[in-house]
Amino acid sequence: MPALKPRDTATAMTRVDLHRLTPPVDQYLGHCAALHLTFFEQLSHAVANAPRIADKDALTVVAGTALRRYEALVAEIERRKLDRSALMEPHLHGVQEFERRTMGADWHEQVASAHVTIGFLTDFWMRLAAGLPKDARERVEQALRIGELDAPLHRIVQRAIAANPRLSSRLALWCRRLVGDTMLQARSALAVAIDSRDDEEQIEPVLTELIAEHTRRMDKLGLTA
Amino acid sequence: MPALKPRDTATAMTRVDLHRLTPPVDQYLGHCAALHLTFFEQLSHAVANAPRIADKDALTVVAGTALRRYEALVAEIERRKLDRSALMEPHLHGVQEFERRTMGADWHEQVASAHVTIGFLTDFWMRLAAGLPKDARERVEQALRIGELDAPLHRIVQRAIAANPRLSSRLALWCRRLVGDTMLQARSALAVAIDSRDDEEQIEPVLTELIAEHTRRMDKLGLTA
Repeated sequence: MPALKPRDTATAMTRVDLHRLTPPVDQYLGHCAALHLTFFEQLSHAVANAPRIADKDALTVVAGTALRRYEALVAEIERRKLDRSALMEPHLHGVQEFERRTMGADWHEQVASAHVTIGFLTDFWMRLAAGLPKDARERVEQALRIGELDAPLHRIVQRAIAANPRLSSRLALWCRRLVGDTMLQARSALAVAIDSRDDEEQIEPVLTELIAEHTRRMDKLGLTA
Repeated sequence: MPALKPRDTATAMTRVDLHRLTPPVDQYLGHCAALHLTFFEQLSHAVANAPRIADKDALTVVAGTALRRYEALVAEIERRKLDRSALMEPHLHGVQEFERRTMGADWHEQVASAHVTIGFLTDFWMRLAAGLPKDARERVEQALRIGELDAPLHRIVQRAIAANPRLSSRLALWCRRLVGDTMLQARSALAVAIDSRDDEEQIEPVLTELIAEHTRRMDKLGLTA
């Protein structure tokens, strides 16, 4: 498990390091939009399964935020006069397979998954935006900053654990299991030359930093990462 | 089957007739918000099941509209310093049971259901708003007018039928079956005195008009109502 690094140092480092692996802008937009459509589906699922109306309501707001980010990404696709469906299509199978693998067996695992995977991947795509052309980069970063996902999902999971402390160990295991699939989903977005040792060396510190963020997220919930 | 009436006349008539049966404003807001949460769930379900990405994308926009209407209704609840969860809770079981009964066996039935039931009930709740205190009425009517639901859902169902004309007869039967449950859901919102013949006489022309709107919706799809 990598040690936690001071956030600013690590971010500065990865902002420098990752941009070489950013895919072309149309590919970035298609994959990131397809992923946000999947975030929306994942969150809507959690809305439908929420046992208490207060959680249902809070998750509805979160799903709405994911939807607004999706719409902002699609607006950038439209601005470039590209076809949104054609751009998302090649990425749909991969993100849906990812969603299926990380869905969870019950509502508690679903909201923990949403918190962990959406948190991790939003950090990742934000860093990856550094390699986009300047105008696209600014609008994409704006899109990914719409509303809040991390804090409200944290509160929902925290409330669930507080109501039933015995959930902790099961959720800790489940969240650890999610990291592998989430890292593979992140990697699938990178423009990596096959067998390039240089590229691999670029990726490593970024994943390390993202895992440190993940650990911080788990710590805040009192879960062992 | 009632004859189609000119829309303006019918609306003017029902606006006069229905407002006596409008429930107190807190009950109206709690039921209408719970219903919109259910619309959102129903539409998200259709997003997840959409076979083509273009439909997935179009339904996402529609789900977003239902969500914005929900948020506007909840904003009105908050403005009145009422507890949204407490207000929605008593209506949740009824609307979820309604959703379950009208969900449909596959994606085609799901989008047809969304078109028919959301169209019918939005017309109904809009008419019912006539009996609210003036300030609440204006804001509720604004909330129910946010974006568009009827036209985009029409286009999605129409596209599905065009791609597979043999769907028509199955969907026509399915949509006819939906009307009963949808009318019962509408009735459950009315402040009707038990066994009041006067109240029943108030309701009849409104339901007739709503069924006429339903028939018009089916006609536009080339389906027999």
